[in-house]
Amino acid sequence: MIENIKIENGILMYLDQSRLPNNEVYLKAETKEDYFTAIKTLKVRGAPLIGVFAAYGMALLDGDKRELKKYLDSARPTAVNLSWATERMLRAYESGKGLLSEAAAIQNEDKEMCRKISEYGLSLLKDGDGILTHCNAGGLATSGYGTGLGPLFLGKERGYDFRVYCDETRPLLQGARLTAYELEKAGIDTTLICDNMAGLVMKQGKINAVLVGADRIAANGDTANKIGTSPLAVNAKYYGIPFYVLAPYSTIDFSCKSGDDIIIEERDGDEIKKGYFKSSMAPEGVKTFNPAFDVTDHSLISAIITEKGIIKPPFKENMEELYD
Amino acid sequence: MIENIKIENGILMYLDQSRLPNNEVYLKAETKEDYFTAIKTLKVRGAPLIGVFAAYGMALLDGDKRELKKYLDSARPTAVNLSWATERMLRAYESGKGLLSEAAAIQNEDKEMCRKISEYGLSLLKDGDGILTHCNAGGLATSGYGTGLGPLFLGKERGYDFRVYCDETRPLLQGARLTAYELEKAGIDTTLICDNMAGLVMKQGKINAVLVGADRIAANGDTANKIGTSPLAVNAKYYGIPFYVLAPYSTIDFSCKSGDDIIIEERDGDEIKKGYFKSSMAPEGVKTFNPAFDVTDHSLISAIITEKGIIKPPFKENMEELYD
Repeated sequence: MIENIKIENGILMYLDQSRLPNNEVYLKAETKEDYFTAIKTLKVRGAPLIGVFAAYGMALLDGDKRELKKYLDSARPTAVNLSWATERMLRAYESGKGLLSEAAAIQNEDKEMCRKISEYGLSLLKDGDGILTHCNAGGLATSGYGTGLGPLFLGKERGYDFRVYCDETRPLLQGARLTAYELEKAGIDTTLICDNMAGLVMKQGKINAVLVGADRIAANGDTANKIGTSPLAVNAKYYGIPFYVLAPYSTIDFSCKSGDDIIIEERDGDEIKKGYFKSSMAPEGVKTFNPAFDVTDHSLISAIITEKGIIKPPFKENMEELYD
Repeated sequence: MIENIKIENGILMYLDQSRLPNNEVYLKAETKEDYFTAIKTLKVRGAPLIGVFAAYGMALLDGDKRELKKYLDSARPTAVNLSWATERMLRAYESGKGLLSEAAAIQNEDKEMCRKISEYGLSLLKDGDGILTHCNAGGLATSGYGTGLGPLFLGKERGYDFRVYCDETRPLLQGARLTAYELEKAGIDTTLICDNMAGLVMKQGKINAVLVGADRIAANGDTANKIGTSPLAVNAKYYGIPFYVLAPYSTIDFSCKSGDDIIIEERDGDEIKKGYFKSSMAPEGVKTFNPAFDVTDHSLISAIITEKGIIKPPFKENMEELYD
């Protein structure tokens, strides 16, 4: 498993994800500005990991904890895990709990959640299966095995030989830069493809299951995830391949009745035109449309796997049943 | 329409497509080596255009025409149009025909073929339609309007306002670099998207028809085209959007019974990992799979449009009927 963060002589060190896969560099976080900038500039990314990272910041940094929470939260104001974790740390501080052990508890709970999702997910797979993945829902985004990739890491430990096809995931290439990196590091048989090649590998019979994460799941099972997820699900349905969504139960947003209620973030078109390229790859004046997510209709999803278990259709009833 | 090649003072000038879209540069072809290199290095690309370009070479260059044909053919040995055009020029030379007028005839026939495809294609579209395109089957690849993009250029001339969504087409980005360039130049409303965003724009109701070219069409209508075409067709079917293939009738290969007989070219994985990027975007050791084409099942195709007319299912019978 990748060590995202580690404490050495009382100082927190974190893996700079912005320099992967070419450079594996650990940086020190010593001041509150170090923590803020690491989150702000995506050096530390992935909702669960950001929460854990900020929790350690709350434990290790001196000064007014209330001010500190406010400051850290402002690094990525829309990240729910971040303010949730700093709030929990603030409550621990006010009730006189040990802060380092509270941060470690948050980290361990995240690990345990990943392990459970991985166990449930693995129970749906067979040794030798061909797996298609999209974006990065791996260990890099969490404190553990990850969600979408979790069953692959757990399976590897148990001697399963999966053949994984990894979508590069345009425009930000999280599949090429992060997923291919961590799968290969774990010794898993990994083949990188462009997003538009996934249909062909499905057609060629190379894929037994599609595994993806989720950013938000509506009450009816409609799932928002990285752009490009929904057309994969349409193809999986066409070729009769199971399509699995793996995510913490907290990803289910019962206040959204369906995917129609989920707002799709639109990002800067220069990510498409310029991005990681040497020079612009498109005419200067051309318009772009750069949605960060799409919504996969629940009818295309075979099962939603959370730490509470494997949820099959009808999703609405079966997801509500696990609520406590 | 884009002027791919032009003759100025008896010297052929060609648009260097390898420098698009950032630089619009015309180069002189004066020696046989100039012609060879332009084809070899993809400065001049697109099967019909290569044929026309080489035909002008046969007309304008001095020396043994038989040797010259052999030399030019060797620049891209698998390009059928190239050897077909140089063969026709050689026959014209041996029968004492005017060579410049023969080259112009080849060019005009190509233009006429594009015009007919464009007319038939346009008859299937309505003013205001949203159109999805993939790769580049445009004027840049031909002497005329192009095939897949032809109806858009012809429609523009007739006052149609299309809204075109243009897939960037990884890994070589022909959609971003070439299609977006020529659509925008023609004043057509063009929006560039990543390949994995096409499913969302279909779902959002923005697309009324998908237009693509073809590299080879089997006797049953199964169609080989740029990688990523088939998953688009699967999504178009799912969302109830017509999917049109536009290509010269000569693209139909009656010796291929179905798509299973079509061999898919596999290319170097560095196109995915490095390509146009500043540095490698994937871990050094990771495997890649880089197929250049996929095959779209005939059951996903609404119509095949050639210069002989609009062919609807059952394709086998209806394509054979037009053979003469």
